[in-house]
Amino acid sequence: MGEPIVREFRAMSLITLTTDFGSASPYVAAMKGVILSVNPAVAIHDLSHAIPPQDVKHAAQFLAGGVPFYPPKTIHVCVVDPGVGSDRAILLAEAGGQVLLAPDNGCLTEVLAALSDRPVVRRVAERRFWRPTVSATFHGRDIFAPVAAHLSLGVPPADMGPVATAWVTLSPPEMRKGLNQVAGEVMFVDGFGNLITNIPAESVTRQPGGLKIGKDWRTRFSWVRTYSDAAPGTVVALVSSDGRLELAVAQGNAAKVLHATVGTGVTLVFPSAKEAG
Amino acid sequence: MGEPIVREFRAMSLITLTTDFGSASPYVAAMKGVILSVNPAVAIHDLSHAIPPQDVKHAAQFLAGGVPFYPPKTIHVCVVDPGVGSDRAILLAEAGGQVLLAPDNGCLTEVLAALSDRPVVRRVAERRFWRPTVSATFHGRDIFAPVAAHLSLGVPPADMGPVATAWVTLSPPEMRKGLNQVAGEVMFVDGFGNLITNIPAESVTRQPGGLKIGKDWRTRFSWVRTYSDAAPGTVVALVSSDGRLELAVAQGNAAKVLHATVGTGVTLVFPSAKEAG
Amino acid sequence: MGEPIVREFRAMSLITLTTDFGSASPYVAAMKGVILSVNPAVAIHDLSHAIPPQDVKHAAQFLAGGVPFYPPKTIHVCVVDPGVGSDRAILLAEAGGQVLLAPDNGCLTEVLAALSDRPVVRRVAERRFWRPTVSATFHGRDIFAPVAAHLSLGVPPADMGPVATAWVTLSPPEMRKGLNQVAGEVMFVDGFGNLITNIPAESVTRQPGGLKIGKDWRTRFSWVRTYSDAAPGTVVALVSSDGRLELAVAQGNAAKVLHATVGTGVTLVFPSAKEAG
Repeated sequence: MGEPIVREFRAMSLITLTTDFGSASPYVAAMKGVILSVNPAVAIHDLSHAIPPQDVKHAAQFLAGGVPFYPPKTIHVCVVDPGVGSDRAILLAEAGGQVLLAPDNGCLTEVLAALSDRPVVRRVAERRFWRPTVSATFHGRDIFAPVAAHLSLGVPPADMGPVATAWVTLSPPEMRKGLNQVAGEVMFVDGFGNLITNIPAESVTRQPGGLKIGKDWRTRFSWVRTYSDAAPGTVVALVSSDGRLELAVAQGNAAKVLHATVGTGVTLVFPSAKEAG
Repeated sequence: MGEPIVREFRAMSLITLTTDFGSASPYVAAMKGVILSVNPAVAIHDLSHAIPPQDVKHAAQFLAGGVPFYPPKTIHVCVVDPGVGSDRAILLAEAGGQVLLAPDNGCLTEVLAALSDRPVVRRVAERRFWRPTVSATFHGRDIFAPVAAHLSLGVPPADMGPVATAWVTLSPPEMRKGLNQVAGEVMFVDGFGNLITNIPAESVTRQPGGLKIGKDWRTRFSWVRTYSDAAPGTVVALVSSDGRLELAVAQGNAAKVLHATVGTGVTLVFPSAKEAG
Repeated sequence: MGEPIVREFRAMSLITLTTDFGSASPYVAAMKGVILSVNPAVAIHDLSHAIPPQDVKHAAQFLAGGVPFYPPKTIHVCVVDPGVGSDRAILLAEAGGQVLLAPDNGCLTEVLAALSDRPVVRRVAERRFWRPTVSATFHGRDIFAPVAAHLSLGVPPADMGPVATAWVTLSPPEMRKGLNQVAGEVMFVDGFGNLITNIPAESVTRQPGGLKIGKDWRTRFSWVRTYSDAAPGTVVALVSSDGRLELAVAQGNAAKVLHATVGTGVTLVFPSAKEAG
């Protein structure tokens, strides 16, 4: 009678997938097939397969925005991997209860920082959990998928490879805070065209003032609590759902209207400085 | 020995997700994480995350086309929510066996009409089922997701908030039917560019006649049973899979060929009227 | 006490979905609803809903790239069906342990060849497993979905219809191999713009030589093992993850750079022939 219980336990295992494979190629399908061939009862949840190709920074922001909300022991697989087949390592990280599997290219930078001061990071090395033949261009199918599936069956992370002492970390973009101004940049553009910056909400005061986006000063904008607090088309500044300065256009697309993208500089000037300047 | 049975019951719970979040932003990922943190065994089914941003009408057509086919007690979450963070209500509706959770902006109009004459609609108000901190811009993560997850665990809808007596309903677009003609408009453009109108199939006779799309008369078109009944490139009129007048281009894209979109007027004139006119 | 075990068995059933429906239309949602109404415990895995509209060749390549990796008895549903509602058959194929359901239009050509020398193919004919009313334009919802769901409950394929003795097969594009050159064409363009040809890896030697793509000769390209073996922007030739000649641009998009698409001719000339010519 014990067998149903064991199966049930496996059914509770969760694997999430985040890739830049797009939706018309069979690569995601192949990864899911390999995972399910090892553990047919695992629940696979698609996070995104629309990370822009090879965009490690986008992946880093994406993972930090999604992964922390999952139940403990969820296994998150990220394959945004321009260095596939090279000697770049594959990392297996445990942090804040989450388990992450990703190439060693910096895409875990923000999520590890958000989850824990002391992540345990390993280099995936134990070939007996890989597919017997490993291609040079598709480690998602040949290494990431079977490793994740074995983890979902209860194989301990320690069996997958040795602890790593160093890994690639993306340098955070500069954020300068002065007495009367704060300057940062756009870190992420979401599907609505909202601009999420690297300026923490607590660094800004909700006061009238100057706003520089890229090279253009913008004096007409409103501080709001949420998008619908302003008339459609208004440029608004608000606190994002993850606690950062966000610039948006009410019922519109700020990235298009403000000609902004990831890396565009954002400067807020508070009143006294503006009067002085 | 009872526990596996209880778990099994939870595994049968189904939640569907429909949003305008797009696929490259972490918002869907965050919602799934919150749901699974409350109920790790629930099955989550993506319906769409490609509803055009803030397009409540599109969401309304979409839900009516998909939701009625689900097994009873499925929990459908729709987050197309331009009014997020305002005083707009969040509705929890029970209709025809389905359970729906959506902002009170009209997106449930068609699906409630299709499911039941007497939906039971509540205002979501009971904060103990929400995330402890609720952001002003992401109720999908902070309210919709945890409420849906608690419903999937068996919390009764009545625990979520009081019965509502009024809610926002979209006005149906005008449909005029005369002796020899019927006039309506395009309600939905599907992924093939097929144009689904608000003209019920029983209002039209399959006879040669005039067809006006937008401002242009089109005399050359064929009544068909299915797309492949006409040569590629032919403009065809047929009964859609949900029983409405549909205009299509065989093996082509009617929206592009006919320069039509949602709201474009469609008039059918039957032979006698045309002779008379 | 037997019931939980039976339910658990059903939970192990897997259905995959591949369509050209796109992500903003409710057709995928309707199919999932019909499947879950028959078998609420089945696990549904999306392979793709972004097959280009009516592109049977793309579907054929896609299925061959994904389906073979699934565990035995997985039920794969492909609805890329320009002939919906006509007298084209719906096929139910068993090959290499996989179960496939698809219109008889050639989309199974490559995957059946990859899976087995002796597939068992049936024509779906037994109406008692269909929806009671079958529309002329949406067999995905009315036939494919309920047939797949009943298969997932354990109904044997033999109950679905008679064995077929012939079915549509796509003609493989010509591949010419000479002493000093090999010529084929692009079969698939993946989400990165990589060009997968019909030239098997064993047909090519990794030597400097000439490369003709479409009408243009390209003498500057590198043979590599993986993308990152060349500087960004370099045109590279390599063995694809499924063992075919692949042309790529390191960290770039070969389809755009080389103006190539499915059907573009590819010729490799090896050194001696080039010297002679």
